[in-house]
Amino acid sequence: MQFYKEGFRGGNPDVKPTAADLRVRAAYEALPDRVDVLIAGCGPAGLCLAAQLAQAPEIKTMIVDPKPGPIEKGQADGVNTRTMEMFQAFGFAETVKRESYWVNQTAFWSPNPRNPAHISRIGRVQDVPEGSSEMPHTLINQARVHELFLEVMKNAPTRLEPDYSWAVRDLEIDPTTSDHPVTVTLENTGINAGETKTVRANYVVGCDGARSRVRSAIGGELHGDAAHQAWGVMDILANTDFPDVRQKCLITSATEGNILILPREGGYLFRMYVELDKLNPDERVSSRNFTADHMIEAANRIMQPYSIDVKEVVWWSIYEIGHRLTDRFDDVPAGQDRNPRVFTAGDACHTHSPKAGQGMNVSMQDSFNLGWKLMQVFKGRSDPSLLRSYSAERWVEAKRLIETDHQWARIMSAPAGESELDSGDMPRFQKQFVENLEFTGGLAVKYDASALTGHETHQALAPGFEIGRRFHSAPVVRVADAMQMQLGHVAEADGRWRIYAFAGQDSAAGSDLYRLCEWLMNDPDSAAQKYRRPEEDIDAVIDLRAIFQQGFDALLDQQMPEILKPCTGKLGLQDHEKIFCVDHKDAGDIFEMRGVDREAGCMVVVRPDQYVAHVLPLDAHAQLSSFFDGVFRSPST
Amino acid sequence: MQFYKEGFRGGNPDVKPTAADLRVRAAYEALPDRVDVLIAGCGPAGLCLAAQLAQAPEIKTMIVDPKPGPIEKGQADGVNTRTMEMFQAFGFAETVKRESYWVNQTAFWSPNPRNPAHISRIGRVQDVPEGSSEMPHTLINQARVHELFLEVMKNAPTRLEPDYSWAVRDLEIDPTTSDHPVTVTLENTGINAGETKTVRANYVVGCDGARSRVRSAIGGELHGDAAHQAWGVMDILANTDFPDVRQKCLITSATEGNILILPREGGYLFRMYVELDKLNPDERVSSRNFTADHMIEAANRIMQPYSIDVKEVVWWSIYEIGHRLTDRFDDVPAGQDRNPRVFTAGDACHTHSPKAGQGMNVSMQDSFNLGWKLMQVFKGRSDPSLLRSYSAERWVEAKRLIETDHQWARIMSAPAGESELDSGDMPRFQKQFVENLEFTGGLAVKYDASALTGHETHQALAPGFEIGRRFHSAPVVRVADAMQMQLGHVAEADGRWRIYAFAGQDSAAGSDLYRLCEWLMNDPDSAAQKYRRPEEDIDAVIDLRAIFQQGFDALLDQQMPEILKPCTGKLGLQDHEKIFCVDHKDAGDIFEMRGVDREAGCMVVVRPDQYVAHVLPLDAHAQLSSFFDGVFRSPST
Ligand SMILES: Cc1cc2nc3c(=O)[nH]c(=O)nc-3n(C[C@H](O)[C@H](O)[C@H](O)COP(=O)(O)OP(=O)(O)OC[C@H]3O[C@@H](n4cnc5c(N)ncnc54)[C@H](O)[C@@H]3O)c2cc1C
Ligand SMILES: Cc1cc2nc3c(=O)[nH]c(=O)nc-3n(C[C@H](O)[C@H](O)[C@H](O)COP(=O)(O)OP(=O)(O)OC[C@H]3O[C@@H](n4cnc5c(N)ncnc54)[C@H](O)[C@@H]3O)c2cc1C
Repeated sequence: MQFYKEGFRGGNPDVKPTAADLRVRAAYEALPDRVDVLIAGCGPAGLCLAAQLAQAPEIKTMIVDPKPGPIEKGQADGVNTRTMEMFQAFGFAETVKRESYWVNQTAFWSPNPRNPAHISRIGRVQDVPEGSSEMPHTLINQARVHELFLEVMKNAPTRLEPDYSWAVRDLEIDPTTSDHPVTVTLENTGINAGETKTVRANYVVGCDGARSRVRSAIGGELHGDAAHQAWGVMDILANTDFPDVRQKCLITSATEGNILILPREGGYLFRMYVELDKLNPDERVSSRNFTADHMIEAANRIMQPYSIDVKEVVWWSIYEIGHRLTDRFDDVPAGQDRNPRVFTAGDACHTHSPKAGQGMNVSMQDSFNLGWKLMQVFKGRSDPSLLRSYSAERWVEAKRLIETDHQWARIMSAPAGESELDSGDMPRFQKQFVENLEFTGGLAVKYDASALTGHETHQALAPGFEIGRRFHSAPVVRVADAMQMQLGHVAEADGRWRIYAFAGQDSAAGSDLYRLCEWLMNDPDSAAQKYRRPEEDIDAVIDLRAIFQQGFDALLDQQMPEILKPCTGKLGLQDHEKIFCVDHKDAGDIFEMRGVDREAGCMVVVRPDQYVAHVLPLDAHAQLSSFFDGVFRSPST
Repeated sequence: MQFYKEGFRGGNPDVKPTAADLRVRAAYEALPDRVDVLIAGCGPAGLCLAAQLAQAPEIKTMIVDPKPGPIEKGQADGVNTRTMEMFQAFGFAETVKRESYWVNQTAFWSPNPRNPAHISRIGRVQDVPEGSSEMPHTLINQARVHELFLEVMKNAPTRLEPDYSWAVRDLEIDPTTSDHPVTVTLENTGINAGETKTVRANYVVGCDGARSRVRSAIGGELHGDAAHQAWGVMDILANTDFPDVRQKCLITSATEGNILILPREGGYLFRMYVELDKLNPDERVSSRNFTADHMIEAANRIMQPYSIDVKEVVWWSIYEIGHRLTDRFDDVPAGQDRNPRVFTAGDACHTHSPKAGQGMNVSMQDSFNLGWKLMQVFKGRSDPSLLRSYSAERWVEAKRLIETDHQWARIMSAPAGESELDSGDMPRFQKQFVENLEFTGGLAVKYDASALTGHETHQALAPGFEIGRRFHSAPVVRVADAMQMQLGHVAEADGRWRIYAFAGQDSAAGSDLYRLCEWLMNDPDSAAQKYRRPEEDIDAVIDLRAIFQQGFDALLDQQMPEILKPCTGKLGLQDHEKIFCVDHKDAGDIFEMRGVDREAGCMVVVRPDQYVAHVLPLDAHAQLSSFFDGVFRSPST
């Protein structure tokens, strides 16, 4: 964590200096008439986007929600490893690690063959496969995740806060102008309920949930499973003789239905999902009248011979959801060749069952994909056509998610013995669960080749950093202070690109690594120079880091290229945190772990949302240039 | 981290529910006339004490400081591993780990034998010896440590805040009463400067620094080295070609003096200490007129051939300090047999050179020793004579500290070749540094046998948990959720005692472990039952944890004694976090690491301040009882 670059400032380093000319937020102050980005909805998608844009004083962002304030409980609770990696970039992964429940093991229970009226444990699986991520899979109240994003927003230079009690009612796009072309009608839902207000925006992002107004305003529709699945979900404080109550459990009873148990933060709370469609027909019919008591009764029947004694029902809900998807995540109909002005993200464009715990995660990943693109456009670093890639990339992922969710449901509901997974010694749902772990961890996402995702020509230089997939962190040592750390943790949610240059066998002055550094530092046409304004730091747009194979002590005395110890900020202070080497203790060798070519080295180009954009030889200056030219433009144009 | 025990509450779980009947803190509200504990001084010692007492609504605590508000910079910056372990108990070790500089390596520089006008590196040492603590040695602004304690206070049930702009001027003890016998005269130092106010207190703790008024009011004097050592200290933002600027460095030049470099939080800031007495005679004489510029010039001479280009002087000071100690840390003169009413802690009773970085650490350890004792007396769980042990225990430690500090100085200043450390291949100050590491880590503290520290009779059952020394944490797995964690991290700064019961080979029903559990649960005369009020939880006073040798999955199906799954809190919720087992991955086997007798097992009794009070066989019920009878009393008497 770096701070004091612009001079010493006491206090919590997460609180950034306030930007100039902020909107006045006194009580009864009118809403602004014009903003750059209007975000509809303070769910995970909206807040994750707002937390990014809040860092950029040049973007006037407004985020509205019809609710009177932040939610306190309920909704989703699963934070997969991929999302934890993203939280790291926002600075609050440690907080979530400390407060949350960690899903270390998942247990499987089914009817006891000797007494099918009773359940018995049939297996147990380590939930996060070894080596798949440095982060745990955690469970925590969605409201708490919201709070952590709200804190990031409030601590950001723009001190961004939501405007509660305002809903987007409608919007219109004026195709004849590029100056705030979207006119949004907001409706008050608070003390001035019904009052409307018009705001003009350059871009609108609908993060307004499954019944999205933004989506319908741009003519989007959810397609898919009309047949909704209904789940009873409750967060309870309860005692039980069920031995696995502090492990994630999938429980199938012989005749009483299924239950999912998710232990939660704090050591006492846990969540139960009851699949209502699997209850007996009588109950199914009346599931609309289901109460918390019915759910507790059902749980007690399903879990025989164990029982649950509920002390407090914290929250409960019937969660009805289909597997549905819109055709596109922006306002540009297929076949039209123009840049988008309105986007949707999260539940506004895709919904799926809570079984795989993806709702909150995928929604945030949507807006993490969009955030840096908007920043890049507003800073004049990319043509607005960059924004087309948002729908293109995320729609494919959403589609894959819904198919996987479907497949899981199909396998689960096939009659015994009739599924392709019914061979072998592991029960079918345990087998499917294990096969899905990479997917449920959020780690299977892979973007296809595009202007943002390079070709696989040089993938063999680092097979462990797969182009199109998230940068898989590994241990390194920061040379200057011999700090053992994760290389991936240098990436903050600051909208910058990163190049990780892995030194080859020859890593002395004159080597490929040094020549790359010198080119980036000195050639006005190099990627590091070309897209930044003259007054900006050398690493303002592209942040270069080098990883060597020697020990830290050998490297301390080596004369390093200037760009690896750049002087930045208004004081021109040396940055000592660009140079890394392999771990000298027992954490593992990053070259080994990711298969980096020790002889040649390579560079790994990583997008601001932590996805690997390219793998190239260290001397591929021209290829790097042409790749970046497809993404960036010089800020002068 | 456990929460929601008394029912769900949204938001940051570090914010505890507010206690009833709190003091009103509106502007111009008068100070209270009577308090239970009055703390003088908001330095590390005072705040660490206040953060503990703030947890207890039954104690009315007030903390005053003549300053107008919290400091922003300067003073000490070293947080040793022992203090980090204590921060863990306060809940902010993770925050410090994230924000601070970690001292991983210390480098030694001295005159280059071939060119004594230039310094060269002669060695490098890993700063925290492997296995000595699970915590790092960190450096961070003392003001930030203050802030973190202030946050703990504000989040505590009593929402405690300092009363700034008030100094203790004097105090008097009325020996004829036990009802608020200390009358304290406070003097305003703010807008009403000079105004005085009288407060009556049951106890007063002087954490008011080296010029302590509280100390002089009770007739205490600092004895020791009259000859003050003078250090120039500065926190700077600077560039340099010195390669080890991000490592802790001890630099000795041939003729220009010595320098200590301490890199700091944030990646840019660092601290330099210049030993003024080692400068040339001219400078020494004028050291009183020393400025920051002189110090920078001296540094540039000492560090030849390297140089420093200072961009911002954040803070600087001449820090003159002797090795001094008072005779006692309370108001009871030697030979008198009564209980103390007034205490001193931190710099108020001992001062030492900043070289070993102990000032802030030892001060907090003082008041961490005192805090739980005060809580225990106020809750009626111990006779006030318990408070005599504070001075007894901490004075011995302070004495040892000052002697070590002295010895270091003597060895360092002996002419070349005339020190006992001048043989072998390591330079003498590097050798001394390595030998001192356990001491400077704060890990060498050992309390002598007393009512609070048992005899070593059964030490062989667990040699790695040395009686009288701090509980040395080791990895375990929490059985209920298969969580890999540190056993020591179950200890919060909540004033409770802990018994860690290590199961022997036989750990089934009927084993020694089970019989211990049953005795503690069911015998009204057992330690767990005897000292608590009937309405209190079974673990309110003594918190029992068990550690087994099997894997977590085997243990989940074992019927456990009731006290290991107790139902507590107003909802009577099961606690799942009392049962642990050896780590099943690669973190290490706690039985192995601490030498716990695998055949017999044992119990390790740990004080609220994390010191091992006793090691006993699992069946030593009577010995445990008699030990606790020497500490506790039943709350009814
Ligand atoms: C009641 C409920 C229960 C749920 N339970 C579960 C569960 O048990 N498990 C699970 O995995 N997932 C659950 N989910 C889904 C999960 O919460 C979502 O997948 C996740 O929150 C998606 O995030 P999002 O930001 O896309 O949308 P949401 O979290 O739905 O946020 C949308 C936000 O937009 C606001 N909004 C609505 N209309 C407008 C408007 N016109 N203008 C502006 N703002 C508007 C809403 O007030 C809301 O704050 C539940 C959702 C709900 C609503
Ligand atoms: C200017 C300065 C520079 C220092 N520099 C270093 C350094 O470089 N390295 C190092 O290791 N240590 C340094 N120290 C020492 C280190 O800060 C102390 O060892 C440590 O803070 C001790 O903590 P404490 O709580 O005992 O006392 P202090 O931190 O000294 O706190 C005492 C507090 O009591 C208050 N106080 C004073 N008089 C009264 C009164 N009459 N009534 C009530 N309150 C009162 C003071 O305002 C102060 O807030 C420095 C201390 C000072 C004051």
